[in-house]
Amino acid sequence: MLFGEEDERYLRMAGDVLADQVEDVLDLWYGFVASHPHLVAYFAGPDGQPLAGYLAAVRKRFGRWIVDTCRRPYDQAWLDYQHEIGLRHHGAKKNRTDNVPSAPVVSARYLVAFIYPITATIRDFLARKGHPADEVEKMHQAWFKSVVLQTALWLQPYVAEGDY
Amino acid sequence: MLFGEEDERYLRMAGDVLADQVEDVLDLWYGFVASHPHLVAYFAGPDGQPLAGYLAAVRKRFGRWIVDTCRRPYDQAWLDYQHEIGLRHHGAKKNRTDNVPSAPVVSARYLVAFIYPITATIRDFLARKGHPADEVEKMHQAWFKSVVLQTALWLQPYVAEGDY
Repeated sequence: MLFGEEDERYLRMAGDVLADQVEDVLDLWYGFVASHPHLVAYFAGPDGQPLAGYLAAVRKRFGRWIVDTCRRPYDQAWLDYQHEIGLRHHGAKKNRTDNVPSAPVVSARYLVAFIYPITATIRDFLARKGHPADEVEKMHQAWFKSVVLQTALWLQPYVAEGDY
Repeated sequence: MLFGEEDERYLRMAGDVLADQVEDVLDLWYGFVASHPHLVAYFAGPDGQPLAGYLAAVRKRFGRWIVDTCRRPYDQAWLDYQHEIGLRHHGAKKNRTDNVPSAPVVSARYLVAFIYPITATIRDFLARKGHPADEVEKMHQAWFKSVVLQTALWLQPYVAEGDY
């Protein structure tokens, strides 16, 4: 992954840049999900309509995830946190936290596909606080590495032990 | 994935840019693998030493993959090709094409992790033929989307049908 101490440093910088933009980032990402019925389905109830309370609860955690990605040390507690995120997308624990009757699992292919929009769209937000281009680039590369790393971790419950 | 006709156009451009740099790209990527024993292991025989013929055969296909990523239409034949690539990393077909006694499966987490180096390192090669910065950026974004898309496809054999 080529992830090192420099990336940790630039993730901290990204945390300072993104902290007061979290709701704007979420508006963009939720707008992207809302405009694709095959993605809305993961938040929908048995009648096919999105569950507003579930959307709101996930949104709150998603916002926290943005900040945690930048600010938390990537230690064993963080690995446990990533493992829990994986379980909550997989059938093992999806819907349980919020006790909702929604889709039973987030398909693995979408966890991977989201690497692109979650990485590409963050760049403009990283550039909004007047940092020089090379620092924006380094923040963005650190973010990209972290998103790929986390996605790899989240897939663990989806894959048989010997294949993971 | 936000993948559209513009990306197809810029992948064609990337194909023209990369066609005569394929061996240089492979030198970089193979050097990266060679410097990490946990990656070399996927090309090693029972004695732990890398199998030179296997490395060479995979390298030839890897070079072809670079060009195919840029130039082939993403139609059903291409989807079948991606499915075959997934099977050849998974235990279902790893080692069979070259009839080698190597590691039985490429771990799923590395398929995902490689999204980063395969995307980040291609940028310099895309910039080497004098294209303006905005065209290099568009070629790079199209490449990034394609690598994520293909990785999502390659994971299919690793994940139970209902979870994929």
